[in-house]
Order: sequence, then structure tokens, then C-alpha cells
Amino acid sequence: MNRYWSRVAQQLTPYVPGEQPQIDGLVKLNTNENPYPPSPRALEAIRQATNETLRRYPDPDANVFKAAVARFHGVQADQVFVGNSSDEVLAHVFIGLLKHDLPLLFPDVTYSFYPVYCGLYGIDYRTVPLADDLSLRVQDYGQPNGGIIFPNPNAPTGRLLPLEDIEALLKANPDSVVVVDEAYVDFGGTSAVPLVAAHPNLLVVQTLSKARSLAGLRVGYAIGQPHLVEGLERVKSSFNSYPLDRLALAGATAAMEDTAYFDRTRQAVIASRVRLTARLEELGFEVLPSAANFVFARHPGHDGAALLQALRDRKVLVRHFKQPRIDQYLRITVGTDAECDALLGALRDIPPTR
Amino acid sequence: MNRYWSRVAQQLTPYVPGEQPQIDGLVKLNTNENPYPPSPRALEAIRQATNETLRRYPDPDANVFKAAVARFHGVQADQVFVGNSSDEVLAHVFIGLLKHDLPLLFPDVTYSFYPVYCGLYGIDYRTVPLADDLSLRVQDYGQPNGGIIFPNPNAPTGRLLPLEDIEALLKANPDSVVVVDEAYVDFGGTSAVPLVAAHPNLLVVQTLSKARSLAGLRVGYAIGQPHLVEGLERVKSSFNSYPLDRLALAGATAAMEDTAYFDRTRQAVIASRVRLTARLEELGFEVLPSAANFVFARHPGHDGAALLQALRDRKVLVRHFKQPRIDQYLRITVGTDAECDALLGALRDIPPTR
Repeated sequence: MNRYWSRVAQQLTPYVPGEQPQIDGLVKLNTNENPYPPSPRALEAIRQATNETLRRYPDPDANVFKAAVARFHGVQADQVFVGNSSDEVLAHVFIGLLKHDLPLLFPDVTYSFYPVYCGLYGIDYRTVPLADDLSLRVQDYGQPNGGIIFPNPNAPTGRLLPLEDIEALLKANPDSVVVVDEAYVDFGGTSAVPLVAAHPNLLVVQTLSKARSLAGLRVGYAIGQPHLVEGLERVKSSFNSYPLDRLALAGATAAMEDTAYFDRTRQAVIASRVRLTARLEELGFEVLPSAANFVFARHPGHDGAALLQALRDRKVLVRHFKQPRIDQYLRITVGTDAECDALLGALRDIPPTR
Repeated sequence: MNRYWSRVAQQLTPYVPGEQPQIDGLVKLNTNENPYPPSPRALEAIRQATNETLRRYPDPDANVFKAAVARFHGVQADQVFVGNSSDEVLAHVFIGLLKHDLPLLFPDVTYSFYPVYCGLYGIDYRTVPLADDLSLRVQDYGQPNGGIIFPNPNAPTGRLLPLEDIEALLKANPDSVVVVDEAYVDFGGTSAVPLVAAHPNLLVVQTLSKARSLAGLRVGYAIGQPHLVEGLERVKSSFNSYPLDRLALAGATAAMEDTAYFDRTRQAVIASRVRLTARLEELGFEVLPSAANFVFARHPGHDGAALLQALRDRKVLVRHFKQPRIDQYLRITVGTDAECDALLGALRDIPPTR
């Protein structure tokens, strides 16, 4: 609290990201990073762009990168909005497309940045409880609303909503923007991008941080009909003319183009998830069905917070959320098989406490 | 206008940056980029960081870079706030420190992004006219206000305000945050950073885009007492946890440390400005005294907008603002001497129109 802060700044409850500690030998399975390196073509493109042209501003419209995203998804470039991470894209979505008189709706268990954006921009919201099995029921979103947003697969549950349900939601809410946050969709989900053509109220958000192994480069995008993209461009151009630097543009463009590498690494992560899930279940864990690069699991013999700490004592970092309904779960990023084995070894070493 | 846009999105008047055209042989003096390349140490640091660690999120607190900024300026790291360009830093400053019941004050002729931020965040503002010679008079800022912001040197005039005047402004407005936007200070101004220790209401904003030749990397920062930085961190952590990517952090840190290169190139720009100013005056231009890497000049025989076009026809790009009081001026970035000579040659080729 400070007399120089605006009321907004005083009332904020900021988002707390997962830790990025520097500890030797740490098995880091807490922030859903990809265990595989970025595409070699992306790294080469960055090296090529590391030259005297960095003295020049980047393209404010990111046209080359937008074209690459459009080609990958089979859409037009004017259906693509880009930003400095999907978090920045989401921030612009909240103020530009989701701030209305009626409340925004999102699940009670979901990406914990959503209520933070609402606090920043003064957006009224209601949370809609997930079902007992932590699945999302679209029929619960029938109330009047100024927008709907959810990740698919959902975070931190990993549960996937079928496209038919998304289509039903779009049809039932023709006056609201429905935002599908597909940060994790490449690990087993089906993207809603093909629904964009028929639905003027659909916006799909993706990131290069997960399946494209570029969390360190900060690039995300949204796909929707041009009228939604135009609204976002208005916000972006009132905030920061050049959110994507020249290196991010170069690396992200090459990463979108290297589809073979993308497919190979995401399939490897999926295979490791299947294996990790089976091993966790052998250890007595209940593991929610996941279409993401993480699993959400609990164990009848362990308290969630205590297990987090016991793993940390063994140099294995996972994530735990102190939130009703999910405080007995751990969210575990799918690492390489070797990293998953380190986790499993540590778990076998921890005696049940109940 | 669109029914899915928020009222904010509908009412925005976005900022329009200077063009970034791709034209062969263009002499580009329109966006105040540095004619010299970035520090070789910055480029090498980026190359070193271009590796598999890009799969990991960057440090959300940018501690290594903050420490480099703090060392350069002789302040503590908790007095440094960083962001994806000084434009992003300014956006957070507007919502976090300048949004109050009383109106924000800034000059009538200044960086044209300021009223855009006010539109985005619903901030009431008043403009304070510059004097007839386009200088800023601190005594005109005596009215009740919720904050004061101006660039020093001012943009697009290039005029410098002495530190004594800034100190007087700080003392006369103890309840308001006074933001000094020092994007261009390294080309002949004196930074207000040494005043931070004594003034809890002072925030100084700088960028690596100008004197450090890194417009393409998008890095800026603010320096103020820790309580102001904390307010900004609250906003940043409610918007985007990791605004600076790993490559930007690496390059920006090395650029701050290469003080010898920084001094050499900014002195070269200053020498070119002195030379350009003299030559323009020989051609009959009235050139405002500039402490920036641009000059603001008008000619009794030329209309501003017509001269912009005539220069463009000769492949020389400068900037013109369609705004009362300054629509007869051109803002000309100081390039290399060769680029300045190309501009001067084109000017000699254009016949006066009145």
C-alpha cells in the first residue's frame, strides 16, 4: 500500500508463476516446460538474426511471423494476432474482448491468471464449478455472460473438452466471445481453429512455450475472424507498438515452419506421459486423464502439500495449488523418461503419511 | 466498431509508430534509431544464449539484468523496474502510478503515446502548452494534478530541461509521481537518476533502443525508490510474468556493461548532430537546440508536409506530425555523416515553395 499507487495497483492480487530456481541436479517438473530443445532451425534463425539490424525496430505488424502461423493453421494472416507470450495476448483479450457489463465466466479450477487479469482491468466475473470429476460441463455455462474463457485441455487438470462441446457452447452464446486457450493442445487435444471460419465469436489462443519448446522466447498468438483480431490490434497498438523483438520473430517463424521436429518431439512427450501415468497408477496414484504435457494426480496416502515438500527435499520440483478442491493434487510436468524415473524413484522413497 | 469489442477497445485511438518500410537504398531518418550497430559484446552474449535453455522460462524477475542496470546507474537493484521496451514500462507506469482522481499533466507537444495510454486506462489528463519557443516551463505545472510526465529531452522537439527545473517540479508536487522519460538523455542531457535518492515521487524511464542501438531487442527500464518499483511490479505480475525473453536479457545485460562502446557511439552521434545542425542552418532551416539523436527543424520556404513528401520522393524518410504548432517542422533522426549528407543533398535539390 502506498499513496503513489493507483487504486488499481493497490487492489491487485498478482499472479505467482512457478519457481525458476537455480539448483544443481534439480529435476524441474513444475512449470510445464518441454524436455526437448527448440527446433535446430529456430536456433539457427536466431543466430542469423543476431546482427547489426538489431539497431532497427522490428516489424510492428510481425507480418512474416503471422504468415507462418497462418500457413501452419490454414487460415488467413488477418486472422492472426501475435504477442509477447500467450499471457500478453490473453491480457489484451481480457481488456479488448472480455470486458463487458455482464460477467465473464470461467471454471472454478483453471489457469489462475484469469482472475488476475479481471482484477487488473476491473472485469466482473463468475466462476463455474467443474463437475466432481473435474471435467467441464458446457451446459453449466447457460447463464447470461459477457464472455467465456477456459483452457483446453484445462489447466491444471489436463482434461480435454471435445470439439462438439465447444461448438455447442459457441452456438449457445452467439453474443459472447468464447476464448479457447490452447496452450497445451498439441499434446493430445484437437484444436478449435477449424471452427473459426463458421463462428464469429470464437478466439483460439496458442503459445510457442510448450509444444515448440520456446518458453524462453516469449511468443504467443490468437486466431479468430478478422473483426476480433482488429479489436486486439487496437489494444496492442495502444500499449506497445513492437511487442515481439527481431530475435523472437525470427525464431518463432522458423519454429512454426519446422513441422517435422514439432511432431517428433510432441509425440515423444505424449509417449512419456502415457508411461508416467501408468507408473504413477502402479504406485497408487489417481491420475486424471490428461491431454497436456503434465498430469494432475493425487494419492490416498499422501497430503498434497506435504508430498510437494518431500519431493523438493529430494530435488524434484512439481507444482501444488493451495486451492479448495485441488489441494490434494500435484501437477507434474512430463519430462524425459529419465526425469520421470527420477520423480518415480523419489516417490517410492517417500513413506505414506496416512 | 464491433459488438464483440469492449467499450475500451471501441473508444481507443491507437498510437501510430513511424514506418518501417523495406525500400532499397532508403535513407531512414524517421524513427530515431541509432546509426551504429549494437555493442559486439551484446551480440556475442545473445549468440551464447541461443541454445537449448530457450525451452526454459526466463527469470521472471530479470535479476541479472536489473543488477547490471543498477551498477551502471549507481543505484540498488530494488530501485530498478524492467520491461519489454520503455513503451511497456510506460504503460505499466500509467495504470499503476498515474491513474488518480486528479488529471495527469503533460506538455501539449510531446510523445504522442501519452494520450493513447490515457485512453487505454481511462486516465483523465490535461495538456500544458509549451512556451512559444517550444520549451517546457515548470512554473506552468502549478495546478492540482494526479501526476506529471514528460520526456527529457522532450520529443519531438529535442529540447532539454535543466535538472534544477526538475528538482523544483519534484518539490512543488510532493504528492504526485513525476515521471521523467529519458529515452534520449544519453545524447547530451543529464539524467535525473541522481535525484531519485532524495525524491520519493521521482521515476526515471530509460530505454536500450536509442543510445544502446537495440531498438530491435525491446528493452526498457525505470528507476525510482523501491516503493514505486513495487507498485510497478504488482502491475507487471498481473499482466505478463516474463516480459523479457532470455535473449533480450542476455543482450541487454551485456549492452549495459559495455560502457566504452556506449560512450564512443553516443559521442559520434552527438558530433554528427552538431554538424547536421550547422549544415541545416546554412540551408536556411531554423533548428531547435537538441540534446537528442534527432533535430526538429522548419524552413520558411517549405511547408512541412510537402517537404516530407519531397524527401520521400528522393528516398529520404523523416517524420512529420500533423499537429497544430508543429506541423511546419520535420523531425530528422541523426544518422551517420553519410546519411546526413544524403539528406542535405536531397534538401538542396528541392526548390522552395514559398
